[in-house]
This record gives sequence, C-alpha cells and structure tokens, in this order.
Amino acid sequence: MTLTQAVTDELTAILGARFVTSGAGVAQHGRDESPLDDAAPEGVAYPDSTQEVAATVRACARHRVPVIPFGAGTSLEGHVLATSGGVSLDTTRMDSTLAIRASDMDATVQAGVTRDVLNDRLAREGLFFPVDPGADATIGGMAATGASGTTTVKYGAMRENVLNLRVVLADGLVVDTAQRARKSSAGYDLTRLFIGSEGTLGVITEVTVRLYGIPEAISSATCRFPDVERAVDAATAVMQVGIDIARIEFLDELSIEAINAFSGSAHQVAPTLFLEFHGSPDGVLERSKAVENVILGFGAIDYRAASRQEGADLWRARHDHFYATRALRPGARAVTTDVCVPISRLAECIVAARAEILASSLTATIAGHVGDGNFHVVILVDPDDENEMTRVEDLNHRLVDRALEAEGTCTGEHGIGLRKTSFLERELPEGVEVMRSIKRALDPQNLMNPGKVLRTS
Amino acid sequence: MTLTQAVTDELTAILGARFVTSGAGVAQHGRDESPLDDAAPEGVAYPDSTQEVAATVRACARHRVPVIPFGAGTSLEGHVLATSGGVSLDTTRMDSTLAIRASDMDATVQAGVTRDVLNDRLAREGLFFPVDPGADATIGGMAATGASGTTTVKYGAMRENVLNLRVVLADGLVVDTAQRARKSSAGYDLTRLFIGSEGTLGVITEVTVRLYGIPEAISSATCRFPDVERAVDAATAVMQVGIDIARIEFLDELSIEAINAFSGSAHQVAPTLFLEFHGSPDGVLERSKAVENVILGFGAIDYRAASRQEGADLWRARHDHFYATRALRPGARAVTTDVCVPISRLAECIVAARAEILASSLTATIAGHVGDGNFHVVILVDPDDENEMTRVEDLNHRLVDRALEAEGTCTGEHGIGLRKTSFLERELPEGVEVMRSIKRALDPQNLMNPGKVLRTS
Repeated sequence: MTLTQAVTDELTAILGARFVTSGAGVAQHGRDESPLDDAAPEGVAYPDSTQEVAATVRACARHRVPVIPFGAGTSLEGHVLATSGGVSLDTTRMDSTLAIRASDMDATVQAGVTRDVLNDRLAREGLFFPVDPGADATIGGMAATGASGTTTVKYGAMRENVLNLRVVLADGLVVDTAQRARKSSAGYDLTRLFIGSEGTLGVITEVTVRLYGIPEAISSATCRFPDVERAVDAATAVMQVGIDIARIEFLDELSIEAINAFSGSAHQVAPTLFLEFHGSPDGVLERSKAVENVILGFGAIDYRAASRQEGADLWRARHDHFYATRALRPGARAVTTDVCVPISRLAECIVAARAEILASSLTATIAGHVGDGNFHVVILVDPDDENEMTRVEDLNHRLVDRALEAEGTCTGEHGIGLRKTSFLERELPEGVEVMRSIKRALDPQNLMNPGKVLRTS
Repeated sequence: MTLTQAVTDELTAILGARFVTSGAGVAQHGRDESPLDDAAPEGVAYPDSTQEVAATVRACARHRVPVIPFGAGTSLEGHVLATSGGVSLDTTRMDSTLAIRASDMDATVQAGVTRDVLNDRLAREGLFFPVDPGADATIGGMAATGASGTTTVKYGAMRENVLNLRVVLADGLVVDTAQRARKSSAGYDLTRLFIGSEGTLGVITEVTVRLYGIPEAISSATCRFPDVERAVDAATAVMQVGIDIARIEFLDELSIEAINAFSGSAHQVAPTLFLEFHGSPDGVLERSKAVENVILGFGAIDYRAASRQEGADLWRARHDHFYATRALRPGARAVTTDVCVPISRLAECIVAARAEILASSLTATIAGHVGDGNFHVVILVDPDDENEMTRVEDLNHRLVDRALEAEGTCTGEHGIGLRKTSFLERELPEGVEVMRSIKRALDPQNLMNPGKVLRTS
C-alpha cells in the first residue's frame, strides 16, 4: 500500500469528491481488455485539467505514490493495471475539444476525448481524424500506446498524425513537446518520445492532431480466396504495386464465422480481404479496378464491390472482430498477439501461425492489417486450465520468435504493457538499455506507470 | 586542444592513415553552408564501418575528446563546426548500400551514402527514396538533421521515412533502434529520438529507409501571380482542398531572377508556384486540373503545364535556389532562415517578411515549401559589414518572433545547430529542459557534437 492518509488528504484537497478510494469504480480501474488478472489501484483521481493533473502528480511524487494514466480501458497488454498500487489517473472528464482549426487541418483536444466523439465533432466541418484502432479509445490513450489500425496503410499511425502534446512529467512539470507547424526540426523529437511511452514517462493531457477532409468518395469491396496464402500474397502484391488504398484487411475463415454469428451477417466463409478506397469518384473507381486486376491474378474466388450500407456493415463487423471472437466461447479470455513483419515475410508467418493453431488444438482467429505486415491471432483460453494456458503461451512465443527472425516486431500497435517486457528485451537488447537511461532521467523514482514497457528489476 | 599524442596514437592504431591531423582536409571539416566562421577540428577520422566508428568513439570517450559527425557538409546551421575542438568523424567511406529489398520497399544503407547515389542504385529496381532537401546530402546526415524538402508535402520527412537506425552511443555501444517492420509499438521510439538529434546523442552509422515505386506518370506545372499574397493564398487553398500533390513550391520575383541568371532559364519574373503531381496518367491529369481550378480562382496570371524536360529543368533550378541567390552578390555569405507555421498563417508571415526585407535594405530571396507552411528567406550579407550583419540578425529575429507568435517553429527542416539554440529555448522552454535531461543521460561527458542543439552552459 502506498496511499497513506496524508496523500489521500492532499489529493482530496486538490480534487474534492473527484478523488475516490472505494467503490466499484476503483476495481474497474484495475482492468483492461488483456487476459491478465485484475490489479486495482488504491484510488482513482478524476482531474478536469492539465493543472489538476500536475497537482495530482506532484502530490503523488512527494509521497512516492505510483500514477497510472487511464483512458477508455481498452488497452490489450495490461497497461492500466495497478500492479504496484498507486493512483489511477482517469482522463474521462478531460473531454473538451479545445480547438478545431479547419483552415490548418488540425485540432487540439484534451486527452480524454474519444476518437468517435472527435469524429462526430469534426463531421460538421467536413473533416475527420483517421487513426482507427477499432475500439473507441481516447486520443490520449491512443497517443500513449502509439496506436494505429485499419487506415494506417494510407494515413499513418498516431506517430504520423500528432503535431504536439502537452505532458505532465513525473515531477509535475508541464511540457509542450512542439509548436503547431506541420513539420519541425526544433531539437529532439519529444512528441514521438511520448507517443508509445505508455504513461511511463509522463501523463499526456492534451493532443494536437492532424485532420483530413472527408473523402469525396469512399468505396469498399470484399474478396474471397481459396486459401490463406493466396489471400495474403494478393494483399502483399497490392502494396508492392503501390496502389493508393485506404484499408486492406485480412480475415481467416473462423474470423468470418465469428463475425457472422456476432453481427448477423452472412459473409461466405473463406479467407477474405476487406478493402476500402478514398478519393474522387473517378479515383476510387480507377484504384478499385487496379486492385481487382492484381487480386484476380492470385486466384481470388470473387471480387465484390460493396454498397455504401454494406461498406458500413463491413467495417463495423471488422471492428467487432475481437469481441466476436471472444463470443465464440463464452467465459473464455482472449489473448491477442500483435506481431508485425516486413511484408515479404507476411504470408509465411500467417500460414505458419495457422498451422500452429491447428497443431496446438486451440481456438483462435486471425485478422490482420496486412498492408502494414501486422496481424493478430486472437486465442481463446480458460484461465483456470493450466494446460491450455501453457499451450497459449507457447504459441505466442513461437509467433514472436518467427516475427523476430523475420526482422519484425513483437508489437505493431498494441504496445508492450506488462506482458511483453521480456519480448522487448529480446527484440532490442541494446535499445532497452537506452530506454532505461531515458526512464531513469525523466522518472528517477519510477512512479509513472511502473513495470510497464520496462521490467522493474 | 583536446587531441593529445596518446589519442592520436590510439586513433592511428584503429584507422591507420585514415586518421589525419593536418592538411587541407582538416580545415574543410570545419565548414558547412552556414554563414558562420570556420571552426576546424583537430583531426579527421574516416572509418569504414560501424565497428570502426564504435572504436573511434570509445577512444575519444576515454580521453574526453569531442566527436563531430560529418556527412556531405551541406548543413546550414553550423552543425559540423568543431567549436570545442575534437575529431570530425567523416562518413564518406561508409558508402555501401547494404540491402535493397524491392519486395519490402525498403533499403539499408551506410550513413555516408548520398541521396543521389541511393536513387541511382534504386532506379534499376523502379524504386526511389523521396526525401529531397535540395543538396545531395548523405542519408545519415539527413537523418541526423531531421531533413525534409520539396516532396515532404506528399511523402513526409525523414521522420516518416526511416524504419530504423544503427547508432553508436557516446560510450561506444552499438544500438539498433527498431526492427524492420513498417510500424512498431515496441517501447520508446528511439528511431525518432535520434532523427533530428544532430549528432549530439550518438553517431548514426546505418539507416533503413522506406522506398516508393517510381510513379507511372509525373507532371509539372508553373503558375504566376500578380502578387505574393495571392500566390501563397492559392497554395494554401490547394492544401485545404486536400488535392494529392507531390510538390508545391513558392518563389518570389528575386528568386526567379536569381535562378534565371544562374541556370540560364527564362521564367517570366513574377511570384510563382512550381508544382508536381505523381500518379497514374489519368490521376495526374485529374489533379492538375483540380489544382488549376483552385489556383485560377485566386487571380493567377497563368497556369502552364511543363514538358518532361521543362519539368526536370524546373526542379534543378529550384534546387539551385540557394546557390543562385548567393551568386547574386559574389563574395557575400548567405544567411538562410527556416521558419514553419500553420498554413493559415503562412501568407501573412511571407508578406510581412517581404515588407521587412524591403525596409531593412537587404538583398534577400524568398522560397518556400508552402504546402507544409515552411519558407526560407535567403539573405546576402558581407560579414565584414557590422551594420549589415546587425540588420540581418534583426530581420531573422523578427521572422522567428512572428513564427512563434503564429504557433510555428524557428526551424522546419534545417535544425538548430549552433545558431538557433536560443531560439529553441524560447520556442520550447520546458521542452529544452527535457532535452537536457536526455542529453545528460546519454552523453554525460558532453562529447557528442557539443554545443549543438543545446547550449553548453
């Protein structure tokens, strides 16, 4: 326990009833969408502003209380679990859109604004924010995780779409990482340093993001293949030809079965690509035809353009993939892997993953942002079945081993959190030492989301 | 002097005749394309490999000798000047292309490969590396500076186009910053930390870059305007409409006069936009027409598509802009400013810059990567004329003041080097403290390119 009466009194003085130490809310803050056991914080703070975050962090620093930032709780690697106790810093109340600047194509939001809320507010300006991890995560959480998703193949990840951040450091100092210009060479890239730092270097309180005009035309298509290898090879070829595509997603047969059952859709069960094009009406037509030509050369069963409504259903179904998989076996937990490899190695990695799923007698779906070389195996597991848990861990290790051997990474977008610290040490053995140096320099007491990204020795 | 006989002996043992302490080569390594006075190093090392760089850096670290990485010497802010003595680490001999992986659309090169050499080697594969700062800089230097240029509006800067780096740290440790996957959330973003660090955190020895297919069609156009404001407003409108454009460059009247004189071209003298489109033949036509429509609405005098040869001449002339300006007044030095602002503020900043140039009786051209909000004023100055030097500094300060007031930056692409350390302190006062913490953590002896980016107190 780190939360003494003195700290509680100080935090109550800052936040009043917005600092709580009991009730269902506290337990909920020890849980995300990872398969890990809950680890509740000792208290939850609900600040309204950067100033309140700074005051909270300063009080915690004085008393050596860990601070764990909490957005929408949709992280997949235990990022928000309070494994060393401390205070969960919930950004829910920080949900103001501070500025939408249509003429600069950017917006500044508080960290707790979710991407759906932001896009609702942007739609009336004809603008949108493209990064789309599926879940309705907060923009602050997405920045902290270095999120990406289905549209990254065209628009990039958070890394490419954040202009600057306001961050509260471990000692309470408020730092702006950059000005608002679209590019900058002004010193070390602090913006990118905090993107993907998972709350371990500071608390992100405001984010300025790049915006895009809502495309004049959006068209979707589905394409089924006789086997997994040809589907992934076709997707890889589309990337190599360099066709401007907004989304290119792979789903295996069980994924299609799962989303059919979950969403009531009736997609024919086969390895499938979901595609989307953004642009002018002529442009999307030209690109869709170009992709069709490439794909049919790989023995696709069909290539079917989707109507506007079908397209919307398609992407909702894709976003439900994780929950649809989990629903295949009620009560099971879902373990999601997240390797990302150079695209020339993607087909062999997915084919091997599939063979290993079969050999291990586990239930798992495969879905991937194949344009980026990133795919997820969502494995269902009964946490009380030790034998099954061991097989899941073995499978996960083999996937990561193969990804590293292919010069890929153990995480394309979910981050390290608690579960991948040892993978990170294998992936970047010297890099981890540099990360430790930076962590020590910016958080010498190891109070900012301790144990995440870097193992506490 | 830091270079004792003991160090010289050690470096000679490592590099043989490839470590020199006398001759014209040493003086040349104390000079870049900034207006600053030369500051020669005490010796120059010409390593062949990462291992030799590491051995050189380790020897220098033991003896507290500064290490200053040197690429093509085309930096504009004094990055390579040996103002604290020490050893210039010249990467010229590290010119191997280690791998071109067409199927992954990436390549790994040693730091000393220049972008023209890389693009020559890529052309036979139908691929190119897009980042284009004008000068034929080394890829390592471009990464260290966080370079960008004319094509950044479409393809991004070094930040978006480097997959990973191999870096030698101040203590000689060799670090790989990331794997080769196209995206990653594996811990802190060390790749982006070293991009733009200007050699102050380590020496970049290898770079893996993203590649693109050479576009099927490339078309260029020029467009003249009755005044500067309308030209910049038109460019801003093109960006706001979101047309996919590969280059959109502004040049003022004196820039056109300068390049006509330097390149023997005969462009009519007027505020001008140079444009380029990449894509399919139909695609570039569609976009060129879309841009023409927008631009004519801003009162353009004409919009003229360029032939293939005219296009090539156009971009060579644009690249010669800096040298063409310098040639306006033989013997003068050129001071280049590099502010970058949100695009809605660009026209007022350029119009004000122009008024101030006139009021200060200085000779200066204006050219800009206006799609990104970035423009350069290239001011000619006689370094022996104190009054003129003062007026130049005053002008530079006013430009930076206005950019900061517009939420822009003092440097969009040239970096901080020696000349902008105090601007950086004004731009990011708390951020600079974070940068200092990182610098102390990774280079506690302050031997890596000391005095650049961060003022040595």
